[in-house]
Amino acid sequence: MIKKLAIVGGTHGNEFTGIYLLKKWQATPELIERSSFSAETLFANPAAYQQNKRYVDNDLNRRFHRDELENPSLTSVEELLARQINHQLGPKGDARIDFIIDMHTTTSNMGPTLLLTAQGKFYNQLAAFVQMYMPEVVISCDEDHKTNDQQHFLSSIAAKSVMIEVGPVPQSVLRHDVFEQTERMASLILDFIELDNTDQLPELPQTIDAFRYIECISLPLDSEGQRTAMIHRDIQDQDFVAIEPGQPIFVTFAGEEICYQGASTVYGSFINEAAYYDNNIAMSLLEKVTLDCY
Amino acid sequence: MIKKLAIVGGTHGNEFTGIYLLKKWQATPELIERSSFSAETLFANPAAYQQNKRYVDNDLNRRFHRDELENPSLTSVEELLARQINHQLGPKGDARIDFIIDMHTTTSNMGPTLLLTAQGKFYNQLAAFVQMYMPEVVISCDEDHKTNDQQHFLSSIAAKSVMIEVGPVPQSVLRHDVFEQTERMASLILDFIELDNTDQLPELPQTIDAFRYIECISLPLDSEGQRTAMIHRDIQDQDFVAIEPGQPIFVTFAGEEICYQGASTVYGSFINEAAYYDNNIAMSLLEKVTLDCY
Repeated sequence: MIKKLAIVGGTHGNEFTGIYLLKKWQATPELIERSSFSAETLFANPAAYQQNKRYVDNDLNRRFHRDELENPSLTSVEELLARQINHQLGPKGDARIDFIIDMHTTTSNMGPTLLLTAQGKFYNQLAAFVQMYMPEVVISCDEDHKTNDQQHFLSSIAAKSVMIEVGPVPQSVLRHDVFEQTERMASLILDFIELDNTDQLPELPQTIDAFRYIECISLPLDSEGQRTAMIHRDIQDQDFVAIEPGQPIFVTFAGEEICYQGASTVYGSFINEAAYYDNNIAMSLLEKVTLDCY
Repeated sequence: MIKKLAIVGGTHGNEFTGIYLLKKWQATPELIERSSFSAETLFANPAAYQQNKRYVDNDLNRRFHRDELENPSLTSVEELLARQINHQLGPKGDARIDFIIDMHTTTSNMGPTLLLTAQGKFYNQLAAFVQMYMPEVVISCDEDHKTNDQQHFLSSIAAKSVMIEVGPVPQSVLRHDVFEQTERMASLILDFIELDNTDQLPELPQTIDAFRYIECISLPLDSEGQRTAMIHRDIQDQDFVAIEPGQPIFVTFAGEEICYQGASTVYGSFINEAAYYDNNIAMSLLEKVTLDCY
């Protein structure tokens, strides 16, 4: 039973959609109210937003590993902020908040994506429910083999959580369509929890299709760590589309193609995501999976 | 006769395309060499690139007004940088460099756009030539009624110049298609100058269609300066498409449409450009014009 829920936006300061949705809901809180639980909002990183950056010192959404939260010698802006948020919504492991929805956007062409960070029928039913009303939603299972303690996402403070990830939208841009997709997904998640809390869930499909994270791959670099290639046009914007062994995935600045070396079909996500340039990540690779709802 | 030319990239630190093209041309300078002029490259704002930002203190591409260049009390990073670049390529009014190509990208759906910042047959023929080989190129006349002295663009250092503007691409992202479009446009501009220098221009169309900047319009704000609306989905991505009087152009967060109040048909550009959020600019409005090539 979920009694207390938090909707978080602005975990990354230049992902405007969640920040403006929070403003809307603060003005009209009835939109996120349901009978069986309380919902509160949190603007996670206003300092980064003020600077129009993803983060001030380091990525807030990688700061919630239990060990980091319990290490007071870590004092970057985001490390301090993580501890404050953990105090506010948590503490992780025994959290005041039962469920967190963390709203993100991506520059990649991922459409509206629901990121599940844990396994189990509750999550699979939640995903099936959202997809029933928004068939365009993609379900992606990210680090769902880890326990909450092992995860470093903000949402891992609560025992249960999901992340909303919608794109493509450039950093620091608010798009009408992305705003509405995010709002609709959040609203459906709230509806699901209300129906689940009150034992009123409709009949759901037996199974749904989803993607599960395997690994991320890096851009080709030279010996000085400089990028020597970019994402090939054939896979640019092709998130969740099959990548076959031998298919070009990069192209050097001189025009030479570099092909995928894996042995089996995979699927990309976060392809050419702006925020992953810091560490030269080109994309995530995923496999197709089926999730059982019953 | 153009004897010395400079190709500039990274005037905005998070517009990666030009920066990587410069790297490519530094490795293979023959790509920008032509017989009748010399070509050099300039990475304009490496400090902003290091910080993965458009600029450090303020927009470098607004710092080249003659008065500002001659005012030594202005000492922001970009004001100092502008003076250094003016020394390197200029000085404005009597510049060592005859022609500047400044390469930019936009988060708006402008496709490959050639920005002309001055009037005259030379520019119209240049635009016609580029469009002859790349029909998808849009010609936009920006502040072309001002003299160089009055203009604040980096490119205004030289007596003649153009800006390349390609989108959509998020800030801090390199796209294969945008990279190739920018490279092709730059190469065609070099070809045109070579042919013009050597009196070998092919026959060009008598006239070409273009757009001319009228004004920019702002996002709706409340009394505290907070945005109350976003770009309406009907005009998002519709750069260079007609906007009619009475057509919805904004939508409030509560869902109310705000319509265009002008009296005649206009065309938008830089619609929802991320970089213009600092000053709440929603888009530029343009009129359709015809340019004479002879």
